[in-house]
Amino acid sequence: MKAIIMAGGSGTRLWPLSRSKCPKQFLRLNGMEKSIFQLTMLRCLCFCGIDDIYIVTNKDYRFLISGQIEELGYQAPEENILLEPVGRNTLPAIYYGVKAIQKKGDDVTAVFSSDHLIGEQDKFVSYIKSGEKLAENYLITFGMKPTFPETGYGYIKPGEKLETGCKVAEFKEKPDFETAEKYVDEGYLWNCGIFMFRTDVFEGEVKRLAPEVYEAFKADTVEECFSRVPKISVDYGVMEKSDKVAVIGLDVPWNDLGSFASFYDEYESNKDDKGNVTFGDDILINAENNLIYSEGKKAIAAIGVKDLVVVDQDDALLICHKDETQLVKEAVDELKKRNDQRAFFHRTEYRPWGSFTILEEVGGYKIKRLTVLPGKKLSYQMHYHRSEHWIVVNGTANVTIDGTERLVKSGESIFVEAGQKHRLENPGKLLLEVIEVQSGAYLGEDDIVRFQDDFNRI
Amino acid sequence: MKAIIMAGGSGTRLWPLSRSKCPKQFLRLNGMEKSIFQLTMLRCLCFCGIDDIYIVTNKDYRFLISGQIEELGYQAPEENILLEPVGRNTLPAIYYGVKAIQKKGDDVTAVFSSDHLIGEQDKFVSYIKSGEKLAENYLITFGMKPTFPETGYGYIKPGEKLETGCKVAEFKEKPDFETAEKYVDEGYLWNCGIFMFRTDVFEGEVKRLAPEVYEAFKADTVEECFSRVPKISVDYGVMEKSDKVAVIGLDVPWNDLGSFASFYDEYESNKDDKGNVTFGDDILINAENNLIYSEGKKAIAAIGVKDLVVVDQDDALLICHKDETQLVKEAVDELKKRNDQRAFFHRTEYRPWGSFTILEEVGGYKIKRLTVLPGKKLSYQMHYHRSEHWIVVNGTANVTIDGTERLVKSGESIFVEAGQKHRLENPGKLLLEVIEVQSGAYLGEDDIVRFQDDFNRI
Repeated sequence: MKAIIMAGGSGTRLWPLSRSKCPKQFLRLNGMEKSIFQLTMLRCLCFCGIDDIYIVTNKDYRFLISGQIEELGYQAPEENILLEPVGRNTLPAIYYGVKAIQKKGDDVTAVFSSDHLIGEQDKFVSYIKSGEKLAENYLITFGMKPTFPETGYGYIKPGEKLETGCKVAEFKEKPDFETAEKYVDEGYLWNCGIFMFRTDVFEGEVKRLAPEVYEAFKADTVEECFSRVPKISVDYGVMEKSDKVAVIGLDVPWNDLGSFASFYDEYESNKDDKGNVTFGDDILINAENNLIYSEGKKAIAAIGVKDLVVVDQDDALLICHKDETQLVKEAVDELKKRNDQRAFFHRTEYRPWGSFTILEEVGGYKIKRLTVLPGKKLSYQMHYHRSEHWIVVNGTANVTIDGTERLVKSGESIFVEAGQKHRLENPGKLLLEVIEVQSGAYLGEDDIVRFQDDFNRI
Repeated sequence: MKAIIMAGGSGTRLWPLSRSKCPKQFLRLNGMEKSIFQLTMLRCLCFCGIDDIYIVTNKDYRFLISGQIEELGYQAPEENILLEPVGRNTLPAIYYGVKAIQKKGDDVTAVFSSDHLIGEQDKFVSYIKSGEKLAENYLITFGMKPTFPETGYGYIKPGEKLETGCKVAEFKEKPDFETAEKYVDEGYLWNCGIFMFRTDVFEGEVKRLAPEVYEAFKADTVEECFSRVPKISVDYGVMEKSDKVAVIGLDVPWNDLGSFASFYDEYESNKDDKGNVTFGDDILINAENNLIYSEGKKAIAAIGVKDLVVVDQDDALLICHKDETQLVKEAVDELKKRNDQRAFFHRTEYRPWGSFTILEEVGGYKIKRLTVLPGKKLSYQMHYHRSEHWIVVNGTANVTIDGTERLVKSGESIFVEAGQKHRLENPGKLLLEVIEVQSGAYLGEDDIVRFQDDFNRI
């Protein structure tokens, strides 16, 4: 069996948690040890090997993906990370994965989003495995058993029963509340965007039902394919038109984290008796049904407020009424229009060697905290316009300057002049933490010359 | 003429702008060059000399006051800074000032709060001066001309006309809205807590009307006076009972910054067409009548919210409905109960030599930015448990370590080991900015040995 993971979404509706260069699928929410993408990988690894997983994404996330897979202790084959030159919705994304799989031969393939939280993993995996035989002849869509009459999802009406699952009688658009109540009563399922099919069966249906996609992918290069292919969803382009569609019901906890409203629902267990979800020891006075997501470092008081989403980060703050979370996207669009970096990046960025956090950035200097994982190192590099002081505050660093190595212990520091080649390495078994103070007339990240082909390091 | 400035208030209702160790009167709001206390000093200096100004405060604010006066280019006589051992409301505070003035002889004295914003300084000063003759025989209360039927203030009904001002016919408690409307129509004035009297006339009335205060102040020490004296306001204890009370109307812009509601009113000119007051380029979508006060460094989006007060600081965040700002005090009380330092201190603290800001404080290290004014120096000091790296990022430092001086220029650094005596000085003409990285097992501010009597430095 094969798996396709769609990991190209930019998660705009969860700003400022999600930033376009590191969207929600790569986040470790609320202190989780794994990102949502990593959890999706681990689910797939329950029914196939690392070489059987194909990830469709874009170039911005390439190193995030390889880094996060490496953290899981795996090495993804380079040809399995499929970079869309441009987003064209789900049908081209999935078909790109299908074409890559076909190079090694047709197979039954499951398709997942990388940004859904799914509970009860064993049960979920057995649902997926149960579809393998059905997938020989059907395009399967998995349908989630509704927990309430949600108006934000499409519904699937199950039809004639099959050995496993049912034929799909009908796909229903997002309903109004009354209709949704009827759907739930009548056993309809949420269309949750999880699919399974044989690649050859799927390709046959694409050829028949979405020939413009089929034809576009005959081009020689990926760039050409994507420049020709229209924007089209797999539901609209194939599933809703095909007569070979079956549905298998899923009954596991599921959250697509589609907005802060669903985020609020996810943390039911954090709710106090007034319906407030908080993540620190915030002070709440006359406050009801608020979501207050913070990093727990700040004194937060919420007084006389109701139904608010408050997300506080070091460099960004969102205050939004719970009924208007769909407008968060507009705020991000405005930031992008201003070329405000806080639409794109977090204060902390993750790298294969660890992470760095910008603590302060003002005229003439910049302060970063570098955290280097045991045994990892940064690239050998040089800056023309800035000097750097490195102060080791935890662990021991092996620092190379112009070819000379030196150990720098906790409490010690070392100075790197502009123009000196330098490298930072953690030779130890514990985390290395270094405070870097940069001074110079120009402190842009692009003043860097690297002396190795390790462009995924800073 | 003399002046008494009451500067002991803790400004709880403006948390997190105001912290109990540095309350609103000492803040430079919205990038003002001077603090509200400094503006009050400058107003007094328009009609009397620095030696004629008496400041009643408590020991927490002693060095804030002398530092802020020094910044204005003045030196306050030590005996003019009167430290209340404990707060006992306005009558004991004012009478403490009166007793101090009387040591040099009786005089006409004006009394001000240190935390009111007052516009049109020249006009205001001429109002004050106009009372000098009247004060020979009357206790004067200045009454502010109302701009709207405020229900949060007491009102003064003017009576029989005098050469200057009028006799007070009656003091009125805080009214309901309808009554307030009537008061405004009938020419009543706001009781705004600005007074003027001859010290001997005032003392006579205290003796007659509040004999327990008069008696308490016969004790030998300030501590004893304040342990005996009851909590009592000057209005209740003297003004409302005396038959020698006159009122002079004031017609100048005035704001007591009594809560975030009055704070919102103060920034009328920052309002957008939806009534939002902001201080940065915040993104507002479907947002009305909000006050968003930030330091302008963060990306802030407010969506679908109305009538909120949002105050965002590096270490604290308040989100409060505008009708419930009186509850901010409760939040501060809760923080104090938790002994949370963010009730007491700001991230940035001001010292006579400049200021320091805590940028990061986590296990094993602490990062501060020190800003040293030209010509100023910190105390000569030593720490047992921490080493310090000083990285000069702007200006030039003169650093003394164990008796040896050295100039450290921008981009350079110096290391101070635990146990070494050290001093930082700005010998130059420009601001000196230093990043200090402390490492050690114990980083408390109390690990410090000072080698001079300059305890107002860190």
